[in-house]
Amino acid sequence: MQQLRTSELLVTLPDDGSGPLHGRLEQELRTAIRSGRLAADTAMPSTRALAAQLGVSRGVVVEAYEQLVAEGYLTGHERSATRVACKAVPPRPARDEEPSAPLLEFDFRPGRPDVSQFPRGAWLRSLRRALGDAGNEQLGYPDRRGMPELREALATYLNRVRGAAADSGQVVISNGFSQGLALVCEVLRADGARRVAVENPSHAGSRQAIIAAGLEAVGIPVDEDGLRVDALEQARVDAVLVTPAHQYPTGGVLPPERRAELVAWATRRNPLIIEDDYDAEYRYDREPIGCIQGLAPDRVVYGGSASKTLAPGLRIGWLIVPAAMADRVAAVKERTDNGTATLDQLAFADFLTRGEHDRHLRRMRPIYRQRRDALLAALARHLPALRPAGTAAGLHLLAWLPKGTDEEAFAARAAERGVGVYTLASYRLAGPVDAGIIFGYSGLSETAIETGIRRMAEGEGHLRAAS
Amino acid sequence: MQQLRTSELLVTLPDDGSGPLHGRLEQELRTAIRSGRLAADTAMPSTRALAAQLGVSRGVVVEAYEQLVAEGYLTGHERSATRVACKAVPPRPARDEEPSAPLLEFDFRPGRPDVSQFPRGAWLRSLRRALGDAGNEQLGYPDRRGMPELREALATYLNRVRGAAADSGQVVISNGFSQGLALVCEVLRADGARRVAVENPSHAGSRQAIIAAGLEAVGIPVDEDGLRVDALEQARVDAVLVTPAHQYPTGGVLPPERRAELVAWATRRNPLIIEDDYDAEYRYDREPIGCIQGLAPDRVVYGGSASKTLAPGLRIGWLIVPAAMADRVAAVKERTDNGTATLDQLAFADFLTRGEHDRHLRRMRPIYRQRRDALLAALARHLPALRPAGTAAGLHLLAWLPKGTDEEAFAARAAERGVGVYTLASYRLAGPVDAGIIFGYSGLSETAIETGIRRMAEGEGHLRAAS
Repeated sequence: MQQLRTSELLVTLPDDGSGPLHGRLEQELRTAIRSGRLAADTAMPSTRALAAQLGVSRGVVVEAYEQLVAEGYLTGHERSATRVACKAVPPRPARDEEPSAPLLEFDFRPGRPDVSQFPRGAWLRSLRRALGDAGNEQLGYPDRRGMPELREALATYLNRVRGAAADSGQVVISNGFSQGLALVCEVLRADGARRVAVENPSHAGSRQAIIAAGLEAVGIPVDEDGLRVDALEQARVDAVLVTPAHQYPTGGVLPPERRAELVAWATRRNPLIIEDDYDAEYRYDREPIGCIQGLAPDRVVYGGSASKTLAPGLRIGWLIVPAAMADRVAAVKERTDNGTATLDQLAFADFLTRGEHDRHLRRMRPIYRQRRDALLAALARHLPALRPAGTAAGLHLLAWLPKGTDEEAFAARAAERGVGVYTLASYRLAGPVDAGIIFGYSGLSETAIETGIRRMAEGEGHLRAAS
Repeated sequence: MQQLRTSELLVTLPDDGSGPLHGRLEQELRTAIRSGRLAADTAMPSTRALAAQLGVSRGVVVEAYEQLVAEGYLTGHERSATRVACKAVPPRPARDEEPSAPLLEFDFRPGRPDVSQFPRGAWLRSLRRALGDAGNEQLGYPDRRGMPELREALATYLNRVRGAAADSGQVVISNGFSQGLALVCEVLRADGARRVAVENPSHAGSRQAIIAAGLEAVGIPVDEDGLRVDALEQARVDAVLVTPAHQYPTGGVLPPERRAELVAWATRRNPLIIEDDYDAEYRYDREPIGCIQGLAPDRVVYGGSASKTLAPGLRIGWLIVPAAMADRVAAVKERTDNGTATLDQLAFADFLTRGEHDRHLRRMRPIYRQRRDALLAALARHLPALRPAGTAAGLHLLAWLPKGTDEEAFAARAAERGVGVYTLASYRLAGPVDAGIIFGYSGLSETAIETGIRRMAEGEGHLRAAS
């Protein structure tokens, strides 16, 4: 056994004023032990000797040694030297961050709003009011359904703007649509549900949430009008997830007859309709169609979020749940994470109530519409063989590729030119879905859209004439 | 079939300036249909007649009818009257809020800090800086592990204050400790784990998270020094959840030998240690003991949150995960809810980095310590037969009842006097745990503590002398 001389300890006390002397010494010694500089079973210098070397009182060293014995870094025995205890403190692991994505000069990634337009000033005002007005109890754990102020504000807003039939008692606040869907799936699963119909193609994240809950995701075809409701009858499912306002990603709007057919099927067969009211706020050619929840509030779970209207970083979403089911969904939310941050909820309630949300949407609609028009014009000009699909709505456009085109190769060639476009691969379930490319246009200027599409088209001679 | 006369429609257009005329008419008609006032199959007045009644142009009514046809409330046929379509829009469900708890004048509910002391001014300054400094990309979806700024700030803070050995790449941000635990359990389950040891008694919410992940919670006894590590050997578990800083709820601090024994067991048997660093910030008699994670960073998942130090409503928690496991835990977080709100994360990073968190803790420690002392004094004075347990730390105190006392009856009598105290019932697993009462003292003034305990003691003659 080796007795360490104080000169070998190489400990210095950083004079950065960060807390008491013994605390700094402890931190230095922990680091030395962890790094292996002080090996296992090494006898430490006496408290007297170390104190003299460091120019501190002996009490400081005694206190540091006692603390590190308590924490398990040192062992102390009556009458014998204090020693380094832990035999196997491994070195600090190397960083393991994700590799960065390849650089894209023009990124048409879908599913995000233009966050550079986020109304920071108005949001800060709402935050300040929320923090100023909140009672102390509002800083505690939230009601499992969410803050009453926000549930009331959302019910009023959705009833007015989306034609919903919501009472604030049916509203459950979540951290975005994905979490809301996961909560509903967990309740479905607990009730013995097995199969959930999803649109084909559809958002992969939603399917993952269904599968993670132990349910099977059953693909149902879509056409230019959205979900093929007639195909549900044979699917023997316990629920259906549908994007009637703007099918994601093909862009169809579910027409009145199919909405009626969907509700009739649900009334007859008793499955749950989960309505993802995706993109409903952004319709450019006419007033948006009210949600299905308003037609059948005891058969529909409605879901929405602030991720596409304001910013994904807010992580605020909501469900309108049939009254009989609302408390069970809220109970899962409570068990999962004890609720969504209360000040954010109060700020969003203020933001809605003061009309800031409406104001922001009114400001953004013409901006996105112009970008959509710029994209359509650029595609028509540079890649006329692509066939745009869907209604004038939303933040993305799907364009079908000519039959036989390899969509992955197309996207890879675009990426080589610094243009990010996205294939249907992750959206597709088993079954025939044509080759298509998704362009998210919400975050790019009109000039960038034109330049990006032109640059992409340079490698696509065979697609530059209409097919 | 009945043709509605315009005078029967009873629709008026509210002149509240809330959007275009046709939108207001649509909303009135939706409400009338949903309420049953307009029955199924009712023929609507002609657009011309309704426009005349309302004093609006015919185009307004045409637009409203078309919209409601699209939404499924009305049906329209060439040449025949527009009719009320949906046969079965049920009435709006009644509110189904939870019943309010009985009124307690003195509530010793544990597990909450005194949120009336929440540093609102400092938090608002951090929020304002976060919102002002955030790049646009920081308003998008967060990195699956959390914002790098916060992970860096937490690693620095926990390494300094808690003796952790964390690299920011190992930190995963969650919405509080419960969610973090659920994430870890899901990864354990996917790896084939079956059994997780928990302390007996322990927090019911943590056990629920383990069970909800499909794992079995196996109770291990605690004594006045916390977890009986020697009992782990026979338990054949894949992981252990432990509260070494201040056993919840019995208040023991795990001593050096047991820490070493725990790490040695983990090294030998390869289970995961999940360290809930509960209450570590509040130790009143001496410097807190550093966390176990610092001793064995590749065998320990460390978890903490701002819920007990700042406010539960913030919903911010963190994990330090062994490097080899960090990305998988983060992937579950991403799938669960796409991450925690980014502005809150940036604000908390600012709050930590500027020393506001330390400042708040320094301010709160003497306040809580005085409340604890007041509680101990009041118990000694009024209920000397109760035996307080645990170390001078934390936000709650457990007191053992004399053998044979019915703890539920004790708590019920206290509630009748307007005093809320909490039994060990929800904390107890199978196996012998004595009768005890938990007093959360953090949110009550010293006077309220004294008065509440005195009032409670009035009904407890047999407990008013030392046993």
